[in-house]
Amino acid sequence: MSDEREHDGEHEYDHENKHEHDHDEEDEHAHSTPPRDTFSHDPVGHATVHAGMTVGELAEQYGRAGIGAADLHEAVSITEAMFAEDVTVFFGLAGAMVPTGMRRVVSDLIRDGYIDALITTGANLTHDSIEAIGGKHHHGCVHQEGKTEREHDETLRDEGVDRIYNVYLPQEHFAEFESHLRSAVFPVLEREAEADGPVSIERLTRELGRANAEVNATDDVPEDAGIAAAAYENDVPIYCPAIQDSVLGLQAWMYSQTSPFSLDALADMTPLTDLAFEAETAGAFVVGGGVPKNFTLQTMLVTPGAYDYAVQLTMDPPQTGGLSGATLDEARSWGKLEKAAKNVSVYADATITLPLVVAAARERVETSPDSSVNQSVSDSSVDQ
Amino acid sequence: MSDEREHDGEHEYDHENKHEHDHDEEDEHAHSTPPRDTFSHDPVGHATVHAGMTVGELAEQYGRAGIGAADLHEAVSITEAMFAEDVTVFFGLAGAMVPTGMRRVVSDLIRDGYIDALITTGANLTHDSIEAIGGKHHHGCVHQEGKTEREHDETLRDEGVDRIYNVYLPQEHFAEFESHLRSAVFPVLEREAEADGPVSIERLTRELGRANAEVNATDDVPEDAGIAAAAYENDVPIYCPAIQDSVLGLQAWMYSQTSPFSLDALADMTPLTDLAFEAETAGAFVVGGGVPKNFTLQTMLVTPGAYDYAVQLTMDPPQTGGLSGATLDEARSWGKLEKAAKNVSVYADATITLPLVVAAARERVETSPDSSVNQSVSDSSVDQ
Amino acid sequence: MSDEREHDGEHEYDHENKHEHDHDEEDEHAHSTPPRDTFSHDPVGHATVHAGMTVGELAEQYGRAGIGAADLHEAVSITEAMFAEDVTVFFGLAGAMVPTGMRRVVSDLIRDGYIDALITTGANLTHDSIEAIGGKHHHGCVHQEGKTEREHDETLRDEGVDRIYNVYLPQEHFAEFESHLRSAVFPVLEREAEADGPVSIERLTRELGRANAEVNATDDVPEDAGIAAAAYENDVPIYCPAIQDSVLGLQAWMYSQTSPFSLDALADMTPLTDLAFEAETAGAFVVGGGVPKNFTLQTMLVTPGAYDYAVQLTMDPPQTGGLSGATLDEARSWGKLEKAAKNVSVYADATITLPLVVAAARERVETSPDSSVNQSVSDSSVDQ
Amino acid sequence: MSDEREHDGEHEYDHENKHEHDHDEEDEHAHSTPPRDTFSHDPVGHATVHAGMTVGELAEQYGRAGIGAADLHEAVSITEAMFAEDVTVFFGLAGAMVPTGMRRVVSDLIRDGYIDALITTGANLTHDSIEAIGGKHHHGCVHQEGKTEREHDETLRDEGVDRIYNVYLPQEHFAEFESHLRSAVFPVLEREAEADGPVSIERLTRELGRANAEVNATDDVPEDAGIAAAAYENDVPIYCPAIQDSVLGLQAWMYSQTSPFSLDALADMTPLTDLAFEAETAGAFVVGGGVPKNFTLQTMLVTPGAYDYAVQLTMDPPQTGGLSGATLDEARSWGKLEKAAKNVSVYADATITLPLVVAAARERVETSPDSSVNQSVSDSSVDQ
Repeated sequence: MSDEREHDGEHEYDHENKHEHDHDEEDEHAHSTPPRDTFSHDPVGHATVHAGMTVGELAEQYGRAGIGAADLHEAVSITEAMFAEDVTVFFGLAGAMVPTGMRRVVSDLIRDGYIDALITTGANLTHDSIEAIGGKHHHGCVHQEGKTEREHDETLRDEGVDRIYNVYLPQEHFAEFESHLRSAVFPVLEREAEADGPVSIERLTRELGRANAEVNATDDVPEDAGIAAAAYENDVPIYCPAIQDSVLGLQAWMYSQTSPFSLDALADMTPLTDLAFEAETAGAFVVGGGVPKNFTLQTMLVTPGAYDYAVQLTMDPPQTGGLSGATLDEARSWGKLEKAAKNVSVYADATITLPLVVAAARERVETSPDSSVNQSVSDSSVDQ
Repeated sequence: MSDEREHDGEHEYDHENKHEHDHDEEDEHAHSTPPRDTFSHDPVGHATVHAGMTVGELAEQYGRAGIGAADLHEAVSITEAMFAEDVTVFFGLAGAMVPTGMRRVVSDLIRDGYIDALITTGANLTHDSIEAIGGKHHHGCVHQEGKTEREHDETLRDEGVDRIYNVYLPQEHFAEFESHLRSAVFPVLEREAEADGPVSIERLTRELGRANAEVNATDDVPEDAGIAAAAYENDVPIYCPAIQDSVLGLQAWMYSQTSPFSLDALADMTPLTDLAFEAETAGAFVVGGGVPKNFTLQTMLVTPGAYDYAVQLTMDPPQTGGLSGATLDEARSWGKLEKAAKNVSVYADATITLPLVVAAARERVETSPDSSVNQSVSDSSVDQ
Repeated sequence: MSDEREHDGEHEYDHENKHEHDHDEEDEHAHSTPPRDTFSHDPVGHATVHAGMTVGELAEQYGRAGIGAADLHEAVSITEAMFAEDVTVFFGLAGAMVPTGMRRVVSDLIRDGYIDALITTGANLTHDSIEAIGGKHHHGCVHQEGKTEREHDETLRDEGVDRIYNVYLPQEHFAEFESHLRSAVFPVLEREAEADGPVSIERLTRELGRANAEVNATDDVPEDAGIAAAAYENDVPIYCPAIQDSVLGLQAWMYSQTSPFSLDALADMTPLTDLAFEAETAGAFVVGGGVPKNFTLQTMLVTPGAYDYAVQLTMDPPQTGGLSGATLDEARSWGKLEKAAKNVSVYADATITLPLVVAAARERVETSPDSSVNQSVSDSSVDQ
Repeated sequence: MSDEREHDGEHEYDHENKHEHDHDEEDEHAHSTPPRDTFSHDPVGHATVHAGMTVGELAEQYGRAGIGAADLHEAVSITEAMFAEDVTVFFGLAGAMVPTGMRRVVSDLIRDGYIDALITTGANLTHDSIEAIGGKHHHGCVHQEGKTEREHDETLRDEGVDRIYNVYLPQEHFAEFESHLRSAVFPVLEREAEADGPVSIERLTRELGRANAEVNATDDVPEDAGIAAAAYENDVPIYCPAIQDSVLGLQAWMYSQTSPFSLDALADMTPLTDLAFEAETAGAFVVGGGVPKNFTLQTMLVTPGAYDYAVQLTMDPPQTGGLSGATLDEARSWGKLEKAAKNVSVYADATITLPLVVAAARERVETSPDSSVNQSVSDSSVDQ
């Protein structure tokens, strides 16, 4: 008991020692609070939500909070600046964003003039084209390692269905895609190659966009013509460094074996670098990691300037040490971002954050009375 | 060359072999598509966003997509059902949700009658109370392992500032919290303990809510009275199994050393189990993992029924094997969820998904013409 | 062409501008390398592995590398210091570590005198006891959200098998556990409670360890007596703040309803704090997050000292902002770690890193010629 | 009170209902255990570690446990089969594996004949070459988003130091690398291009390996000649689809602007596909995700066969839906893996798991008395 009391005394003391605790409230702060250079007054608010609020209003509420919500709010502000001001926007699109439903968000951004160059994967272009010519992806289900997942995927194999996480693609669409490439895309490139040697990858993606737009219109496909088509129609170049690493690349390779057609691996780097050169102000909007992220950032290694704005939406954790999850500040050490650049990374599922950030940024840009782009925006982004 | 052709032939063959490819489009599907029992027609749509859309409209768009977006859409639908129908809702709140700005989203849900029991941590109650009596958290910055982070946290230590990821808390608020507990909360419980023995943890959280509401009103604190106060005023019990594991718990322990006051670790399990018993339909809305998640789910181990609805917002990956990231289907094997239960897990930052899911679900429930709760909803959730 | 050349010139220039590139290697460093205060010479080596190397040798190789390997190497060094020197070691064990095969690693550490206090979950104690009295967990398979996972877990439910990620537990073991508690554990505590009021949680875990050891011996169970038994036999206290949050806690509650038995939620904090007080040097070894992590760290909030060593093995990402993934430097701002403390977090699956770190640390401690603990180590850790 | 008893009665009943609890142990299993088709007897053991155990012995212990430890054990067994049997091994190496210390593990595997084709990134080849010619990476520290990280990276920028997570690279090494390429690598390729048109990427990596080996020997560089050199000396082709996406690619592009040198994007796909064709048995060992993972797997889309063995070491979570974290079973639905293939994914930091899996597999293969490769193994992998 006395033992108890003794400890209690000690605890009191130590507690004091730890928390500058003082029972005399009045003069406590006077004597107990040390000078604070690191800490500055910037209270955390609390997000408040209500029925019927707009996405832009929700984004404002995120700004009151911490952790990822604060990052998301900053991502909206930086994206608003990229969209509203005269910024050359380089858009990196990795991952399975097209088969999983992000196709229209990107094609609308292109149509409405928010993107100046797209850096993406052959897979995204393959799946974008399949939908442009009438194919469809389907909602499916996922399995983990283990006997049953195996059986499930074996069955899908028997049924000729390819799985992308929780999305299915019937394989016959690849055959339709091959026919499309062999009839509407490769022949003209073959002639150009015969005349002038290997064509650039950007030349292929442009021709693909033209053909997708044409077939989408003539076949009256319900789904919109998509990303490559929108880029073609709006003179937005699409760069795809690892094109071989996709079904589109496999098709190009097979076609090249019986024709003079071939692709130049280096040619695109000149116009891409030129675009970075000519940019008064440059912004990078990167969805996911991989080659699209690195290629978007590395072009600044060979230009005097660097990115003034950068937003990254990723779910790869930075502690893996991989580039995909690397912070954008890391890119600053390489000179890929300006020291004064505004940048933020949002670590959350991009299928959730991409539509959220784009909707909120567009709300700010397009509904502000003095919005410069206000008029220029077509109705394409209004959901029919 | 012939070598080439030979390979090309082989490739063609194998390609056929892999993709049932056929140049004759017409009758392809007839002969090339195998019977498909696993695959069913359920096309992935593409999210479309536009300026000024509501959060509920955005949630609809997520439903078109795959991966996390599809899960988020399902979370909104299940939450709508929990909120609209006569469901007893058990709300698990883990993590650093209060200091990082989610306090008001939860207190509004309690005030508007959407929550029947709250299972949370002592930390959330500590930080909720600090703001109720006039303290504030502040936006700060984060550091990783390494020399500089260390120096940063050493400086914060010198300055008497505690860091919670990117949020700061000046330590004097803990002293104010201690005074609050010793003057307005513990004395009455001490008398009850003297008369009837150890009090329940729920009795402490209720008294804390009463005191927080009182001080918040008398001191005219700009921030709202918070979660514990809202629970007290709306007769919503707060269960906090690991209360010792918090500053609130440390204070209770220190007070108990010089008084007959003590807490009964088991008492709350009876009313919580009774609530689960009496529930016609039961729903679990779990934010984060840890004790709040497990305690919310395990109560069904000792009741004949189980949860009919369950939504989980977490960023812990399932492949760790830990309970925090475990899927809700796993809980079904334990009998914590009904076989027929509707459940989904959203793997993304909860500070982003919680306001998003709540705003979208409230939009559906409160703006539908025949909304039963429509009238009952106060204006508390309208942002001032 | 001239255009080309012009660009090439520009690129050269910018390239210079970016990388201080100079064709004259000799005097390059002289003029092109700026003063470097941040950067210091500390070359990354390259891990080299060979057949038959020991785990300790592998750990040395990790020290040459970066990212997680470097962290793991540091974890081994800090653990070695905790084990070799006269350090009071607080061991936090969260997660599903016992059902997933980490039980023996921990019980051997206790038997060999490396742990002074264990802070864990009721779940770990429940699964530890089930194996002590003859029950077994089994390898199983995992499923993700989706129709098939659901069916799988529904089937397991019908078959009376509980799933913990990829581990199965037949439910009859819970009934055996209940009988064990009601026959060998609760009665004596009931008598103590009748005489002296609520018992402490540590008193329950100690009695559980005694009973587990007894039954394990009398029933000649092939599996070893486990963690609670080893703690009992070596006078190592086990603290379990959230004991209600487990099947053990549910059993205690049900027993308490028809007996004077009850548990005091606060009692254990005094001896735990005393242990921290008396520690000349204190170390925290934390596996996973949750309550065991926070409770292990927070005890230093009410002691004059703090941890001198801290190792954390976790797979929760820090960017969630949750405590489970929080860096240990963050804990320094709270005064839970000494400013001069040695600490590291390893972000990887703990079922992989725990045996690895322990084996490497034990190799260093027990095989060094001047090892103080060398003799004291029993053969319990030699695999039979 | 009666209320209490009543509840207790109910609880008993429900408890029965949930856990087939029965106080009569004897005939319990007879009547309470339902038929179990899903569940099979496969007890989880418990890892036991001791001082001085080999990495192979540790791997055996992982096999007793669950979650990631069980996966790692399976990875060792599958890798053993790939190394011991006559399997054509395709090795995918992504991420920052070379700058972070995994260079020697891979170059030793090549020298000892365990790898038949390497698919990697331009970044890994760039960093491999920098060390081959005398440059070094250095241990550094990491920062997160926030003011201070920014300042840190700004300082590194001023100091001409590039950061890769917690690894630093002084920028002058890029200039040395450029000189190396322009003097020893590009000229010969320029002549070949002048004569025969664009060269393949594999031709460039082979020439790079030759030059690295030469300079490493003549300059007597302490670090070993590395991956590209080992591949050159052992006729192991290196495929690098996204070579443009690296400093090596930028250098190739700049050189190509003033010379006839250029690279063919498609040429490598023929020999790679041929290798897959000719493989009696094929295995994929994939470290990290991105292009190396997908390119390694997709080659099976145009061959009649598929992988018989596949091991993936990654830290990308599968729930992102991205390819990098995708399970290998998913690849089965595409026909990239044989239905009967043995495959496993280990979700943990690859800098920890790669040396661990390789050391354990080599121990099994090289120390087994009847090991076929036993003799063929050079001493190169013995740590000096």
